[in-house]
Amino acid sequence: MRAPKIPKPTVRRLAIYYRCLNKLKENGIEKTSSKEMADLLGIKASQVRKDLSYFGEFGKRGVGYNVDKLSFKLKEILGLKKNWNVAIVGAGNLGYAIANYSGLEKNGFKVVTAFDNDEKKIGNMIVPGVKIERIQDIEKIIKTYNVEIAVLSVPVNAAQEVVDILLEAGIKGILNFTPTSLSVPENISVEDVDFVISLKSLTFEIASAENEL
Amino acid sequence: MRAPKIPKPTVRRLAIYYRCLNKLKENGIEKTSSKEMADLLGIKASQVRKDLSYFGEFGKRGVGYNVDKLSFKLKEILGLKKNWNVAIVGAGNLGYAIANYSGLEKNGFKVVTAFDNDEKKIGNMIVPGVKIERIQDIEKIIKTYNVEIAVLSVPVNAAQEVVDILLEAGIKGILNFTPTSLSVPENISVEDVDFVISLKSLTFEIASAENEL
Repeated sequence: MRAPKIPKPTVRRLAIYYRCLNKLKENGIEKTSSKEMADLLGIKASQVRKDLSYFGEFGKRGVGYNVDKLSFKLKEILGLKKNWNVAIVGAGNLGYAIANYSGLEKNGFKVVTAFDNDEKKIGNMIVPGVKIERIQDIEKIIKTYNVEIAVLSVPVNAAQEVVDILLEAGIKGILNFTPTSLSVPENISVEDVDFVISLKSLTFEIASAENEL
Repeated sequence: MRAPKIPKPTVRRLAIYYRCLNKLKENGIEKTSSKEMADLLGIKASQVRKDLSYFGEFGKRGVGYNVDKLSFKLKEILGLKKNWNVAIVGAGNLGYAIANYSGLEKNGFKVVTAFDNDEKKIGNMIVPGVKIERIQDIEKIIKTYNVEIAVLSVPVNAAQEVVDILLEAGIKGILNFTPTSLSVPENISVEDVDFVISLKSLTFEIASAENEL
């Protein structure tokens, strides 16, 4: 993967600040501070300031941030001024759940196509109006629909093979739900969402806390 | 949240090393090195060595690691020498998909109960043999089944209210699939799995790469 100038944890926090700012906006709040955001998120104010400092000066000392302006700036930084077309690759329980998650469309991610290799599923709707297509048709359909992001929810043993097809089709980013490290060229972005790893991170913390008693 | 001595990204990588070592073991490989593991995972060997160094000396310079021993040690560190009872809280599409994910049981996580507030779902099986129960019965059932970990997949507006019930019931860790920052006492562990945040991290990278062209 291409080495980004901004650390990944910072980028994730920017997305969390953006969510937080939108919530403040919904509540009619126009001004905020690193302290207020940090308190809402359970982190340190210095962390908020450091993360935002990568992109120049946003707030005024003692005055804080204009919610609207900072939110707009983060929207731009995160690449969210446009909507993104998404393909669900692997229409099992997980692929179906993700495709139907209300948060996607609300955040500018539109599921425009889905793929599976199970002939019984082909032609079924994954979300209203979006048919499940054959894996063999990935390249044609990805190009037709101008899909830039693929959600990978296939069985782990098929993961790399399917990724190679997606790369061939010109996909730019992969949200990887399979429990494996994908091999992709430097200019392709991958985000791993592995909740078994998250569960193990949880058991580490619980076990450590118990050992401290 | 309690401040852990080990940085969170390190803990996540330990879980990934553990997965990697088990794969090597399956392939009959008995010795490995930080270089080999790093290459398999697309990271730097120095990162692997640094992460492992938190827990003392594992490998011998020039000899590398014994796969079996390191895997066993990581299993212990990650709290995986025992199985963990898990409750699915919120039996919608996502809760159902997680409950039925084959990777859970394989990794020592057993779904023993599930909860929802939709009367139509109560009594249905979320996985074979595991019934969906009423939210009101959380406290009783969590204690009966000795559940330590809850997977939170309820709608976001119900999240904190349900978490407060879970805390009352004595849950120790929460895998949070809702797009919000939960408020919990210091001794309770929370892992956020927010794939909309991951998608935004992806669009940041894609947009940054395009701006560089």
